[in-house]
Amino acid sequence: MPAPLFPAPGPKRELEEGTVLTPRFGPDGLITAVAIDADTSEVLMVAHMNDAALKKTLETNEVWYWSRSRGELWHKGDTSGQIQTLVEMRIDCDQDALLLKVRVAGDGGCCHTGRRSCFYRVVEIDGSGRLRPPQSP
Amino acid sequence: MPAPLFPAPGPKRELEEGTVLTPRFGPDGLITAVAIDADTSEVLMVAHMNDAALKKTLETNEVWYWSRSRGELWHKGDTSGQIQTLVEMRIDCDQDALLLKVRVAGDGGCCHTGRRSCFYRVVEIDGSGRLRPPQSP
Repeated sequence: MPAPLFPAPGPKRELEEGTVLTPRFGPDGLITAVAIDADTSEVLMVAHMNDAALKKTLETNEVWYWSRSRGELWHKGDTSGQIQTLVEMRIDCDQDALLLKVRVAGDGGCCHTGRRSCFYRVVEIDGSGRLRPPQSP
Repeated sequence: MPAPLFPAPGPKRELEEGTVLTPRFGPDGLITAVAIDADTSEVLMVAHMNDAALKKTLETNEVWYWSRSRGELWHKGDTSGQIQTLVEMRIDCDQDALLLKVRVAGDGGCCHTGRRSCFYRVVEIDGSGRLRPPQSP
């Protein structure tokens, strides 16, 4: 078995108040990562990292995810030019979610549909279960 | 088997460009929800909803999650007073993540450690695997 890339999570106090990165990957080996625009704070996308993707992100300062659909490491922007440069990373209290403050290269977009953010549709909160029609990419 | 609370996801085109909420819950029955402050856009927390939590959130305009640790519906703020009133909900391109723009009641906090946001620690991006020491709650 290869050596783990990060130390194992410690007790609650260390997990929440400590100064060692001990990410809690889920049963699928993944941790949730939320990417926001470093300048505007706009939420751009939610994706996932495995231990190797997190390691590469910290080593290169460019964001790597784990593509669940393709089952492979995903250097975001490799084909689209929409490279995400990491400005700041934060981790939450129980170390099972990451916040990535990024600057996006290329045309500045994040979503494969052509929009800047993946969150381009509003859910009507009238209980109708409708989405407000999205603007074109 | 009880009737599903939301319609089943359709083909890719409907999922991405359609106007019907067809959330894609994971194998664990959960969808990721990112809560941000409606006024400042600060990312407050990442949590999860099952179908019932999402339904209750849309019906009541107050945020309900599924507590994975307690295995029960969680009306955020019920005991702390930190009720999250929903100002806007968005869903992402493939309908497997929600963005919640909220106003927080009580002392305005979100994190059980006493901080306003759960993302109170910066991960050093020097590759050291260290976290910057957090400020006290």
